[in-house]
Amino acid sequence: MTQIEVGCNLDYEVRRETLLQLQIAVARDNFQQIFNESLLINPNVDFTGALVGPESVRLNQFTLQAENYNIQYRATVELLPDIDQPTEVRETPIGRLPPETLTYLNPSRYCESDLLSRFAFEKFGNWQRGYAKVQGICDWVNDHLDYEPGSTNGTTTASEVLLQCSGVCRDYAHLMITLCRCVGIPARYVSGYAVNLQPPDFHGFVEAFLDGQWYLFDPTRLAPLNGLVRIGCGRDAADVAFATIYGDMRLSHKEVWANSTDVNNGFQNGSSDAVSTA
Amino acid sequence: MTQIEVGCNLDYEVRRETLLQLQIAVARDNFQQIFNESLLINPNVDFTGALVGPESVRLNQFTLQAENYNIQYRATVELLPDIDQPTEVRETPIGRLPPETLTYLNPSRYCESDLLSRFAFEKFGNWQRGYAKVQGICDWVNDHLDYEPGSTNGTTTASEVLLQCSGVCRDYAHLMITLCRCVGIPARYVSGYAVNLQPPDFHGFVEAFLDGQWYLFDPTRLAPLNGLVRIGCGRDAADVAFATIYGDMRLSHKEVWANSTDVNNGFQNGSSDAVSTA
Amino acid sequence: MTQIEVGCNLDYEVRRETLLQLQIAVARDNFQQIFNESLLINPNVDFTGALVGPESVRLNQFTLQAENYNIQYRATVELLPDIDQPTEVRETPIGRLPPETLTYLNPSRYCESDLLSRFAFEKFGNWQRGYAKVQGICDWVNDHLDYEPGSTNGTTTASEVLLQCSGVCRDYAHLMITLCRCVGIPARYVSGYAVNLQPPDFHGFVEAFLDGQWYLFDPTRLAPLNGLVRIGCGRDAADVAFATIYGDMRLSHKEVWANSTDVNNGFQNGSSDAVSTA
Amino acid sequence: MTQIEVGCNLDYEVRRETLLQLQIAVARDNFQQIFNESLLINPNVDFTGALVGPESVRLNQFTLQAENYNIQYRATVELLPDIDQPTEVRETPIGRLPPETLTYLNPSRYCESDLLSRFAFEKFGNWQRGYAKVQGICDWVNDHLDYEPGSTNGTTTASEVLLQCSGVCRDYAHLMITLCRCVGIPARYVSGYAVNLQPPDFHGFVEAFLDGQWYLFDPTRLAPLNGLVRIGCGRDAADVAFATIYGDMRLSHKEVWANSTDVNNGFQNGSSDAVSTA
Repeated sequence: MTQIEVGCNLDYEVRRETLLQLQIAVARDNFQQIFNESLLINPNVDFTGALVGPESVRLNQFTLQAENYNIQYRATVELLPDIDQPTEVRETPIGRLPPETLTYLNPSRYCESDLLSRFAFEKFGNWQRGYAKVQGICDWVNDHLDYEPGSTNGTTTASEVLLQCSGVCRDYAHLMITLCRCVGIPARYVSGYAVNLQPPDFHGFVEAFLDGQWYLFDPTRLAPLNGLVRIGCGRDAADVAFATIYGDMRLSHKEVWANSTDVNNGFQNGSSDAVSTA
Repeated sequence: MTQIEVGCNLDYEVRRETLLQLQIAVARDNFQQIFNESLLINPNVDFTGALVGPESVRLNQFTLQAENYNIQYRATVELLPDIDQPTEVRETPIGRLPPETLTYLNPSRYCESDLLSRFAFEKFGNWQRGYAKVQGICDWVNDHLDYEPGSTNGTTTASEVLLQCSGVCRDYAHLMITLCRCVGIPARYVSGYAVNLQPPDFHGFVEAFLDGQWYLFDPTRLAPLNGLVRIGCGRDAADVAFATIYGDMRLSHKEVWANSTDVNNGFQNGSSDAVSTA
Repeated sequence: MTQIEVGCNLDYEVRRETLLQLQIAVARDNFQQIFNESLLINPNVDFTGALVGPESVRLNQFTLQAENYNIQYRATVELLPDIDQPTEVRETPIGRLPPETLTYLNPSRYCESDLLSRFAFEKFGNWQRGYAKVQGICDWVNDHLDYEPGSTNGTTTASEVLLQCSGVCRDYAHLMITLCRCVGIPARYVSGYAVNLQPPDFHGFVEAFLDGQWYLFDPTRLAPLNGLVRIGCGRDAADVAFATIYGDMRLSHKEVWANSTDVNNGFQNGSSDAVSTA
Repeated sequence: MTQIEVGCNLDYEVRRETLLQLQIAVARDNFQQIFNESLLINPNVDFTGALVGPESVRLNQFTLQAENYNIQYRATVELLPDIDQPTEVRETPIGRLPPETLTYLNPSRYCESDLLSRFAFEKFGNWQRGYAKVQGICDWVNDHLDYEPGSTNGTTTASEVLLQCSGVCRDYAHLMITLCRCVGIPARYVSGYAVNLQPPDFHGFVEAFLDGQWYLFDPTRLAPLNGLVRIGCGRDAADVAFATIYGDMRLSHKEVWANSTDVNNGFQNGSSDAVSTA
């Protein structure tokens, strides 16, 4: 089984006492086995951990003083995703969706599915239902948008992205999620680490609920589906911010990585397998 | 102990097979005791019940055919809220908030706290912390807005309401929630029934997290805090829609009520007690 | 030459002294000959006339007291448009546009061409230039939108219309104008009367600048191009509001008409001629 | 009479044939006398000049090839503004506004006065009318906003600025203009050069119509009213962009200046005179 080493190295300059909440530790679940995990801060301060929100995102909280800090997170992860034939993955009718998935049909801050329902319905309403439709939406988003760092910011929403035709991974994910919800398919935002990502950084991608499971999609096509290591998921990026800061501090340096230990790692951005996490 | 009889009577004209999800049954929790509850549909069809979302909102789901239906919900509720002195209710520092409340600091579809943070900080940042600040925000919203049915619709957001200075209960609640989140106080949207409401209808109000509990606020001042019977709560109105329709149907008649069985009911819209539900 | 009788009959209830500005009189220019024009108000008050804005829209101004008023406007108009072969109408390169047309390339309140430039460029950038491209945009707008009274209001903009896929004549015109400006073709909003319009009302349509002239387009296809009687034009509907009210009054009744005196009038909504006004 | 030397020095890298339209030459009118004006481009290409829009903004148009160009504009300007006592400048009632000013009551792309009318009315409706009210709006905008380069971009509108409480000169001007229009005072955007501006750059400010004349206001307070040299004015920044580019080019260097020839120049940012241009 292939292992992936993920982690990040963050330097912060703190100007006055500041509360820092990080969501950078990979999710503990049946599909991600974690080995040798560590979270270090230098100079050393106590910090706490908690599980936040309906999807139990791991959050670490630090109270920092006016100093420079280095925070390092490392983990080795083994992924155990289910691999399916796309043609065999069907759509779950809305009336039979599990209750816990219904919240992922609702509009959210960056995914205004209430505004785009007719647009989505006219474009995708008649497409073949099931995995193929979600893959089609994923492809449409990839085609409609240009990947342009700096073209959006932290308050940009899916409808703005649709109009301006550009964005980064976060925006690609928001637009795809919104269109899926519009056609009755629960979809959620996932933050994580990604093998092959150039330049290396945290990544944002998508899970859509089909046939009783959550399937992974990456509308940017910048990483292979079987190289996506999940930190956490939520309704949109608002739920899984990497860092939330109450006070006054600055990120002065950031390094993020996700490396396979296997030379012939079998990670292909273009694979057509359906990959589910639950 | 005073009892409140709540309920609604809904007539629907269904034009083709339609899936209807209702969130109209009052919440079962330690603060609301329910007696004699009934949910009837005529002509009779089977329906299901489920608890949805992190706050376990009760959802009933009906598959309807092209016919006319009448749906009636009735319950008798006894409220057991905690009553506190406003001056003794303090703010919980962000670093000590329970993990399950953190999601209510995030921006959501109709509560774009990421857009209004500086506006809120400049207006309310220096006010005395605790219940008084939240009450101050509640009063400010009441003062800033005119109650005008028809001035907003189902996609109106808090920042739009702030600019246009008008709205209905839903909009009052969204604006208050947004401003609370901006100043670091978890706040959520509550749907429910309300004694004294004129004209009678479903109601939307606010819970803010202070001193380890959720406190009730009604920025419209249209109902007494001890006459609010909760259906469910969520990040904003998107989570607790009374009816969600997949298909083609029309609400042809609606009647909603919330009546106290006690003549000297002690419900006063202007009471200054702090009322908490948890 | 066919004549068209246009007019309107407006009843107002004025609650306190109010200033009313009307832009309902048809434009005086080389392409519209006006006969037998009258503007009456009952009870009688003095009113003034002026030409407003760069396109000299006729504006009548009334100071009204707390009373009921009836205002009637009537004119008989003969249209002398130029009729051209669409295939012979070419695009004017931006560098050779007359200076007075450049303002119609700028974004305006309801036509945010700065937001939609890439969207428009990707959709229409490679289409054949000239009248055919503008007609193509007109057809695309007609196809993309559903005509739905009540789906928009007076503050709805082109980008909102593009997302929600519905609107009325004003919204059709705004979207078409915006897309034309995005691809470098000056376009402006025209208010007027329209033969065959069902239900009869004021109408809003489009002029695009091609080959040295302004050509008429109606993306709603609700009226024939040679049955459009122009009141005035501007950057968008903000410039040619039928009524602007400073005070407190209510329109209690409105009747609008545009009738041809010719039984075999030759007005066809589907005509493919290119019709220019200058 | 004090003279001001203004100008700019612009380096462009052109990647393919590009049409460049500049609006950088100062306005010729009765209040600005121009001496020794020059506009040079190197390597030399022919260019044209035109007067654009209802306010006759001077526009120079260049067709450039894939090369590097330097463009230099210089002029010496003598300002002849009228100086009045603020207390004697009254508001012109809407019914008596000259027709050519009415367009400056309409909402425009970056000044959505249709969205903010109630907000403005509740804040400023009861203030003393005349120059004092406009100065009050100017002061309110200065107080409400933080000057933060990078906090807005070229598509930011007045209502966004109002919510986010920050912006640059363009945004200050847009918000002030919008609020003036909301309370019935025509207001327009002016681009120009400004003495004392730090760092030196093009500037954007405001003219409001009072008592039959256009009065200058600078809500940023970054330059003295009698040191503002006007390029042109329009409904908002959309009408007076310094550079409009059709093609592919990049501004690689920019220098802008406005220097008084008088050592004791009498330019004071804090002067309380009313300064009008017409």
